[in-house]
Amino acid sequence: MVSTALKKNNFQNDIGTVETKYYTFAHPPNELVLECGERLGPITLAYETYGRLDARRSNAILILHALSGDAHAAGVHGEDGATGWWEEMIGPGKGFDTNKYFVICSNIIGGCKGSTGPAAINPTTGRPYALGFPFITIADMVNTQRRLIDHLGIDRLLCVAGGSMGGMQVLQWAASYPERVRAAIPIATALKHSPQQIAFNEVVRQSIMADPAWRKGDYYDHGQPEKGLAVARMIGHITFMSDRSMEEKFSRRLKNGVFSFNFDADFEVEGYLRYRGANFVKRFDANSYLYITKAMDYLDLSAGRLIRQDKLIATRFLVISFSSDWLYPSYQSQEIVRELKGRQVDVAYCELKSTYGHDAFLVETAEQTELIRNFLRVTQQGYHSWPGRGTTVGGFA
Amino acid sequence: MVSTALKKNNFQNDIGTVETKYYTFAHPPNELVLECGERLGPITLAYETYGRLDARRSNAILILHALSGDAHAAGVHGEDGATGWWEEMIGPGKGFDTNKYFVICSNIIGGCKGSTGPAAINPTTGRPYALGFPFITIADMVNTQRRLIDHLGIDRLLCVAGGSMGGMQVLQWAASYPERVRAAIPIATALKHSPQQIAFNEVVRQSIMADPAWRKGDYYDHGQPEKGLAVARMIGHITFMSDRSMEEKFSRRLKNGVFSFNFDADFEVEGYLRYRGANFVKRFDANSYLYITKAMDYLDLSAGRLIRQDKLIATRFLVISFSSDWLYPSYQSQEIVRELKGRQVDVAYCELKSTYGHDAFLVETAEQTELIRNFLRVTQQGYHSWPGRGTTVGGFA
Repeated sequence: MVSTALKKNNFQNDIGTVETKYYTFAHPPNELVLECGERLGPITLAYETYGRLDARRSNAILILHALSGDAHAAGVHGEDGATGWWEEMIGPGKGFDTNKYFVICSNIIGGCKGSTGPAAINPTTGRPYALGFPFITIADMVNTQRRLIDHLGIDRLLCVAGGSMGGMQVLQWAASYPERVRAAIPIATALKHSPQQIAFNEVVRQSIMADPAWRKGDYYDHGQPEKGLAVARMIGHITFMSDRSMEEKFSRRLKNGVFSFNFDADFEVEGYLRYRGANFVKRFDANSYLYITKAMDYLDLSAGRLIRQDKLIATRFLVISFSSDWLYPSYQSQEIVRELKGRQVDVAYCELKSTYGHDAFLVETAEQTELIRNFLRVTQQGYHSWPGRGTTVGGFA
Repeated sequence: MVSTALKKNNFQNDIGTVETKYYTFAHPPNELVLECGERLGPITLAYETYGRLDARRSNAILILHALSGDAHAAGVHGEDGATGWWEEMIGPGKGFDTNKYFVICSNIIGGCKGSTGPAAINPTTGRPYALGFPFITIADMVNTQRRLIDHLGIDRLLCVAGGSMGGMQVLQWAASYPERVRAAIPIATALKHSPQQIAFNEVVRQSIMADPAWRKGDYYDHGQPEKGLAVARMIGHITFMSDRSMEEKFSRRLKNGVFSFNFDADFEVEGYLRYRGANFVKRFDANSYLYITKAMDYLDLSAGRLIRQDKLIATRFLVISFSSDWLYPSYQSQEIVRELKGRQVDVAYCELKSTYGHDAFLVETAEQTELIRNFLRVTQQGYHSWPGRGTTVGGFA
């Protein structure tokens, strides 16, 4: 017998089965020119869509994911039955309400989740790019997503939203294409990485590259540098949680009730990290981790780079941070707000109380739902009075 | 020509040339029984002393060092000319005034700085212990230091002091031998590691053990697992600094002025971490890092284990923490204070403002000097009215 709760879930609140789609473009000789000056093509982007595009093509929302995320943000995947990484936020009646909005989630170039990255076959060699893959930036990711949005026939996005590196892409969208973004929701993110954030990423990269199985990136015939990548991911998981959330989840509980008096995992937290590390190597490409973390470190939209000095933009912002997030602390979201206010941009800022650390943007869905639902409703009401594509609201005198 | 400042340094404020001494004990069949149940012997402890023991043997202060420290706390080492790790704190007229006090700094078992540890020769095999070295705890370290203090003819220490893992040893001294410790100064430390602290240590261990050059600890004929140990140390350095101190020291400055668009060290902070990692492998044994971090993780002096329920102790405490230390946050020092107050122990607590993070206990010497100088003076005034060795101040009714 199916319970009422389950029925409700299945038939009222959820998207149901979804599939990942692929868009391929920039075929030679029309490759995309990257920020580093190199050319890349053909490029495939993996993406998913939920809900329906309205007749005026005015209800499209682009969702962008974090470092190890993918295009599968919501629904049940047809292939493996996995639910999306932002399942609680996207669906009928949810924060990003698929009864009202056409939601797109785009993967990133440089990744390993169906889009072109270092593990993809280099058409000129017939072998994986490996370190032959060109260096990419957050702006390059956004430029490819702009091509996808063109392909989908969408002139102006109602909203661009995402957390962590997804938030960096949101900011870059506003910086690169303000006339195509009616509203932006950068969550738990930053205009630029602090040296501490760069340091954590650098240790992650060094851990991968220290593994002899990495073979200077040319490991595709031999298997992943599993040990180095696992350690890298363990570091990540510490930074995603907070001191408090680790205390609540693990405290000092022992795995087997007694000390081992050797180098086994004595504490539950050790077992958790080992498990997460070992699992990660099955689902993520080590070279992608290198490329993507570097792209994050290079981003710097501070000091007038978010909005050009000579522009006023009509994009509305909702900036969200979490009180216990020490990887992307609230002061970094406040720097975004300061930058926007200095350019007379419409911006609301909320720091949500949470003990979950950086993971809060994935976990604390109730308050985010409330904020985002209202923000989107007001945005949509004003959508058609918005200056058209290519227009900015005028320059400073 | 020697400047006045240098003269002053050399002849008035500094200890001058020092040498490391060694004490060997627990010769078979009288090995030391460790907490894990195994026996260890012979045991050598490296130590240094500064100043002179007075006739009543009442002015001895024991200094204990952090994870990668050694016995060389002050003065200029006769062999390599290196200054001590707490040079600013120990010497004539300094916080630990060697005109007044006889200062001892003891190394730890399990280490690699002259004391018996995994790199030492196992007398039964003629080869390095490697992972054959028995598991050690903070209490084992303190038990060997107690033997050293006996050897030096000191019945009661005026004070035991140290930061970080040194502070853990301070707390363990008070727990194991309260009647032999007149005063205790635990700095930037904790009664027990939180799961976050355990997690950082576990990643450090995993990084070392992931390096194939580690060879299950049996690498002494082949050289250190350099890459794994370097990554481990890089993680450590991030946790020793604060977000703020990294911003002040490095910000986002580039090493070579431009982005490399590859995986070189672009940012100064990356270069710094790589340098510190590479340097560490020249001076510290990887297996020692494993043993010592586990000893730290196992310590738990909370919930009545610092002072037994049936005891009142006469040891005075000065507990110090630093506002920006997120590795050993102030709340952990406050837990020490709460534990002591609950046992009617004389305790003063100071949180010092600093941006240096956990490194502050090594760097912020001015305020520590003031606090410690006064604390020691008052302690010494009351020393002879203190109940004798073996006495506790009575039990609860």
